[in-house]
Amino acid sequence: MKDTDCLVVGAGVAGLTAAFELKKRGVEVQVLEARERVGGRTWSGTLDGAEVDWGGEWIGHGQPRVYKLIKELGLRTFTTYDRGEKVLEVRGRTSTYKGTIPWMAPWKLIQIQAGIWWLDSLAKGLSTEEPWAHARAAGWDATTLDATRRAVMWSADARGVMDAAMRTIFGAESGELSLLHALAYIRSAGSLNNLIATEGGFQHDRILGGAQSISLAMAASLGDERVHLGRPVVQITHNTAGVVVRDARGEEWRARRVVVAVPIAIGARIVFEPALPPLRAQLMERSYMGAAVKCFVRYEKAFWRDRGFSGEAASADGIVSVTFDQCSDDGSTPCLLAFIGGRSARTWHQRDPEARKQLVLDRLAAYFGPEARAPIAYAEVDWCTERWSGGGPIALFPTGTLSTHGSAMRTPIGSIHWAGTETARECMGFIEGAVESGLRVADEVAQG
Amino acid sequence: MKDTDCLVVGAGVAGLTAAFELKKRGVEVQVLEARERVGGRTWSGTLDGAEVDWGGEWIGHGQPRVYKLIKELGLRTFTTYDRGEKVLEVRGRTSTYKGTIPWMAPWKLIQIQAGIWWLDSLAKGLSTEEPWAHARAAGWDATTLDATRRAVMWSADARGVMDAAMRTIFGAESGELSLLHALAYIRSAGSLNNLIATEGGFQHDRILGGAQSISLAMAASLGDERVHLGRPVVQITHNTAGVVVRDARGEEWRARRVVVAVPIAIGARIVFEPALPPLRAQLMERSYMGAAVKCFVRYEKAFWRDRGFSGEAASADGIVSVTFDQCSDDGSTPCLLAFIGGRSARTWHQRDPEARKQLVLDRLAAYFGPEARAPIAYAEVDWCTERWSGGGPIALFPTGTLSTHGSAMRTPIGSIHWAGTETARECMGFIEGAVESGLRVADEVAQG
Repeated sequence: MKDTDCLVVGAGVAGLTAAFELKKRGVEVQVLEARERVGGRTWSGTLDGAEVDWGGEWIGHGQPRVYKLIKELGLRTFTTYDRGEKVLEVRGRTSTYKGTIPWMAPWKLIQIQAGIWWLDSLAKGLSTEEPWAHARAAGWDATTLDATRRAVMWSADARGVMDAAMRTIFGAESGELSLLHALAYIRSAGSLNNLIATEGGFQHDRILGGAQSISLAMAASLGDERVHLGRPVVQITHNTAGVVVRDARGEEWRARRVVVAVPIAIGARIVFEPALPPLRAQLMERSYMGAAVKCFVRYEKAFWRDRGFSGEAASADGIVSVTFDQCSDDGSTPCLLAFIGGRSARTWHQRDPEARKQLVLDRLAAYFGPEARAPIAYAEVDWCTERWSGGGPIALFPTGTLSTHGSAMRTPIGSIHWAGTETARECMGFIEGAVESGLRVADEVAQG
Repeated sequence: MKDTDCLVVGAGVAGLTAAFELKKRGVEVQVLEARERVGGRTWSGTLDGAEVDWGGEWIGHGQPRVYKLIKELGLRTFTTYDRGEKVLEVRGRTSTYKGTIPWMAPWKLIQIQAGIWWLDSLAKGLSTEEPWAHARAAGWDATTLDATRRAVMWSADARGVMDAAMRTIFGAESGELSLLHALAYIRSAGSLNNLIATEGGFQHDRILGGAQSISLAMAASLGDERVHLGRPVVQITHNTAGVVVRDARGEEWRARRVVVAVPIAIGARIVFEPALPPLRAQLMERSYMGAAVKCFVRYEKAFWRDRGFSGEAASADGIVSVTFDQCSDDGSTPCLLAFIGGRSARTWHQRDPEARKQLVLDRLAAYFGPEARAPIAYAEVDWCTERWSGGGPIALFPTGTLSTHGSAMRTPIGSIHWAGTETARECMGFIEGAVESGLRVADEVAQG
């Protein structure tokens, strides 16, 4: 039995931020991680020499905590490539545009804009602290985004464009999303535009060496003696004085406090003794992960740049939802990213691997030119197959959940504290949100 | 390491039916149960001498398998008490009625009837085998029952009456329910009326000695050497040749096949090696249990019967959704049951125990008379606190789930077979459905 002040379950950005902060304040911490790596939903690697982010990768404006942390860790960022024209695909036809407003028939554009205004204006009325406390929360939580938006968006094409955004942001179809959850998420981000935009939005910057660098640097600072990989936590026995945590190897760890910093749905797999209050247990049980697949295609040349494309494309048609330029900072490792989210991602593993690659290359060729058909390397990460994430990019809360169970999101239960990007008040779902939650929970533990 | 032909995980009605049937066919079975009792969501006990069902209790017309099983096990049924007037509460005002049609302003009654017709007529078009294969399945799965019914039910009172039914049937608010899931459930039951009705419906009969008797009798027939209590399964290692199952005590069981017969959401806590295909894993992750609390109140006399009440009341107002007479067959142990479902059930544990009892007594007094305030005993079971059920009465599938993941519901994965009432084609969610799934899976294993 090993003793410490505070145990942290999960060595993603949230858990490591909490541990890193607590260590600075002189609190003894031990971090238990299920995987054989740190980083959680951030995970960086290489594809034929190109640095790629298999998971979360962007940071942007309105995210002060992550920039501060990056600076403190001695890491550097670079601006997401955003020059040239973007591509929009609707019903198999592509058009190009600059900035954030695609070309479409004006009345459809107006409906897209109306949809954005409608969501932003409803979201503005929510508090970031307690979106579930709004007078209309129960009503918004009893319907889906898809069912409700039809009143302002009667064009299927306009809805299709919004779907591409929702698949990318939530890894979900608009019909899966509780309207309340969608609004709370937008509120937490500041605006829908922040969620969508590259320049000036949440996709503004990437991190040199990949987003996992943040976790690797914090883990290095904590040291091997504090960060323990390959240790899924199976049981937490708790009372107000402290906890005993058992990992899958059968080892037990004792502490005054525990920070649970695993995805909210994954936490439901841990046996809590005594059982958690139902409001909390059902919040975890009801939450599930979105579905996301990231496909990376390496090329000899960044032919899309030469042709005046930014590499960004969005498709209302549903297989690939968006694409991005994924070259290194200096452009020396040409690479494109195709992101698949929602229903297509959930069934992606059922397609033949060669057919999957072909589907992606077909779309890239349609958007940027026939050179797309001749890559030098291809790789994909299906987050739905990642046991310790269960999907991606974020956790979803079915209709009827947030309005009733939201108050259990951050409330500590005795010696148990809750972190993770979904518990963040600002930039929920992003790396910034993970950092925010880690700092908040470090305060709770240090003050308690 | 213990060897057998077929392991069954979960000793509820589904798992025990499978084991009971396989044993009859000469297949060697071992059943592992997490709890210290059999029966799963059926659980019978006594309250001051009255036999009560803490969990599922009714069987009814259109449920041939459970009646056949009951006969085979030498058990007996009795008719649910259904004489006298019923009570309907809307906005704090009560009215009485006979049969299944309450008294309300005719235009509200018409809206309730329109709502029922609308649901029944949509449900009729679904196949029981594959409700997700319907051409409109994706659309119905992108909205909630509440969001959609407003087109035919603009009276809040009419919707409130439907809410009382939905809270009872699903343990959920109408805004939590995917319309597709609600329709598939109604289809599987034959009609909405079957779900609601006592006489001629699914609440027609009760079982002497309680519904758990079915499981107890099957377990007795299987013998202690085949049914192992207090053994939560933590891991299933599988390939096409067989499985190794590890329980929480660290013991390992080897078999050619395994039948997983635990609630679909609870199955997500088991570690599968190798991991399940995402379509199946996410089905389990996305599913969650409804919320149900059963409160039992014992009296000296069945005063409601004397006053000409059946003991059945429904409330559109949301705390108690329905009440039922819960006396023994001969009426010698007067008892009323108050059922709380949906949002009120989810937050029930946050109320003070004395306040909870008072809330129930207040409603019973409003429905049946002041004698309700003087019980001789009170007890409640909050299924949300039951670790191995996670809620009740049934599993729910959030919007967007059944249309995409439904095909994974019963499909075996190598040596793993799936049972449980939610996997049933007929009478899904009922004891009959559990039996149906047990018989189906026994066929799969015996033939495979």
